[in-house]
Amino acid sequence: MLAQLIALDWGTTSLRAYKLGQDGQVLEQRSLSSGIMQLPKAPRVVAGRECTNGFELAFDEACGDWLDAQPDVPVIACGMVGSAQGWHEAAYRDTPANVASLGTSLHTLRSTRGVDVHIVPGVIQRSPLPNVMRGEETQVLGVLQNLPSDGGDDLLIGLPGSHSKWVQVADGCIVHFDTFMTGEIFAVLSEHSILGRTQQRGAPFDDAAFDRGVQVALSADGEIGPLSTLFSARSLGLTGELRASAQPDYLSGLLIGHELSALASVQRRRRNSVHLPSIILIGNTQLCTRYSRALDACGFARVTLAEQATERGLWQLALAAGLITANPSR
Amino acid sequence: MLAQLIALDWGTTSLRAYKLGQDGQVLEQRSLSSGIMQLPKAPRVVAGRECTNGFELAFDEACGDWLDAQPDVPVIACGMVGSAQGWHEAAYRDTPANVASLGTSLHTLRSTRGVDVHIVPGVIQRSPLPNVMRGEETQVLGVLQNLPSDGGDDLLIGLPGSHSKWVQVADGCIVHFDTFMTGEIFAVLSEHSILGRTQQRGAPFDDAAFDRGVQVALSADGEIGPLSTLFSARSLGLTGELRASAQPDYLSGLLIGHELSALASVQRRRRNSVHLPSIILIGNTQLCTRYSRALDACGFARVTLAEQATERGLWQLALAAGLITANPSR
Repeated sequence: MLAQLIALDWGTTSLRAYKLGQDGQVLEQRSLSSGIMQLPKAPRVVAGRECTNGFELAFDEACGDWLDAQPDVPVIACGMVGSAQGWHEAAYRDTPANVASLGTSLHTLRSTRGVDVHIVPGVIQRSPLPNVMRGEETQVLGVLQNLPSDGGDDLLIGLPGSHSKWVQVADGCIVHFDTFMTGEIFAVLSEHSILGRTQQRGAPFDDAAFDRGVQVALSADGEIGPLSTLFSARSLGLTGELRASAQPDYLSGLLIGHELSALASVQRRRRNSVHLPSIILIGNTQLCTRYSRALDACGFARVTLAEQATERGLWQLALAAGLITANPSR
Repeated sequence: MLAQLIALDWGTTSLRAYKLGQDGQVLEQRSLSSGIMQLPKAPRVVAGRECTNGFELAFDEACGDWLDAQPDVPVIACGMVGSAQGWHEAAYRDTPANVASLGTSLHTLRSTRGVDVHIVPGVIQRSPLPNVMRGEETQVLGVLQNLPSDGGDDLLIGLPGSHSKWVQVADGCIVHFDTFMTGEIFAVLSEHSILGRTQQRGAPFDDAAFDRGVQVALSADGEIGPLSTLFSARSLGLTGELRASAQPDYLSGLLIGHELSALASVQRRRRNSVHLPSIILIGNTQLCTRYSRALDACGFARVTLAEQATERGLWQLALAAGLITANPSR
């Protein structure tokens, strides 16, 4: 089957390439480690010319053969590839943002092989404090496509990760979002702080230790906040109440519990209601499993997982940009 | 003047030695970098014998000449030297703890040169979550000595540091304390997270940037908690609203602001009163200056700084232990 679109999800540490056919069907997909911070370095011939540019090299590895076979297929990309440290900066678009506003704001660069690459801009929310996303907007739009048009008001879309995002939508638009640095804080504390020194890593997921961390964050003891409760990952070890192998998941539960406890408070305040919204999670399955457990403990009753959000979002944006047309063969 | 006591404040990264005379007067003091995690390694002759033990070597550097001159002067030490990773473990004593209970629980080891070293135990609070201190208990006791006996009830003693401690006292006893990992979190985020990548460090203290961080933590925007507001140190940089050179002090203000905001809430809840206690700060002058600014912004009205807390505390403990007697020459 002929490709209609090549879609790239190009982040800091990875590059995923999708060859999409009619209606956005995934014909083939690849995952490379050539994120923008770990691009290939060895010079190679690309389209008949010696090439040393890491972005060109990674692009060629990801989809050069697909383009050799079908040189005219359009290419779209989202993620950190459009940041100031990326291949070509695609300036942020303000909230509210939707498929139409982002799809008509793609930034185009001409690659060495003569193919245009259309880069999706990130989204910025200017107040109260500035907040930015790059890549997540595409995933959110991919999920919204499958929802009824009035389905967003009682909904919150969560994207767990190094910097997790919680996105409110209305009428198909991204209207507000919050960022939590939970994943990165977990990583730097585990690798570089005193908490990591007594951790024994690499054990299978310890659900009891994770749930215990969540419960501490949600308890009256947790009201003092994560800067203080974090120390319990050490003190419980010192008193023999937390095994070294349980410490990583306890710490993970503690941090995710504080994130979701704060999120629940903020949601109740913003909505002026005790009622919590339904949640759709997008992301890595293992991480979404952790967040699902903790969301449940926080009282978020309806949690579902979204699939293929990125490729669907890139397909919708390419349609909105006029790079492709719906049902071209009909 | 003859020494009555050699007092050592022996932590993770430093070793301070005090030669104390009558009434605890400081006759001489030294500061070495031989904390328990950076002990000397080069073998040397100590008391006529080849010595390779890092604790013995550091001890000899710190006060060997004082002991040569006065072999019978008693020696007391507090801090991480008494931890499981220290020279000799001095098991924690439970709260409530005071000069009498700690002074009669010193752990004694015989050094290579035949001198006894008396190590002060740390203090543990078993519930709600376990909490520990080692070294800070001595400083708190040094401060309490100078207070009227009924002066503790409306008082909170703060010890800013990598792990700051906030200690409640009553009737000369340490009755409750909280730990915040603020200082260590600031250090690991600055050195190892994405926030550090855009920081320009080494500038003089930027009080406006620090105060701005404190205000964000205390504002309605800060209610979402530090896991989220931390990202503003990056996003304000991306939007050109926070210079690279202002980012370290903004981050410092943000974290200290969250610590003190949580502390104020907890104090009001525990005391069941809107009234906040008086504060005595113990520690590094520059860090105490930061905390004083932020405490003021949080509504803690009366803040004073304590001096010579460690050496006074060690003197009191040595008296309680019977290592020395008050006014020996009278």
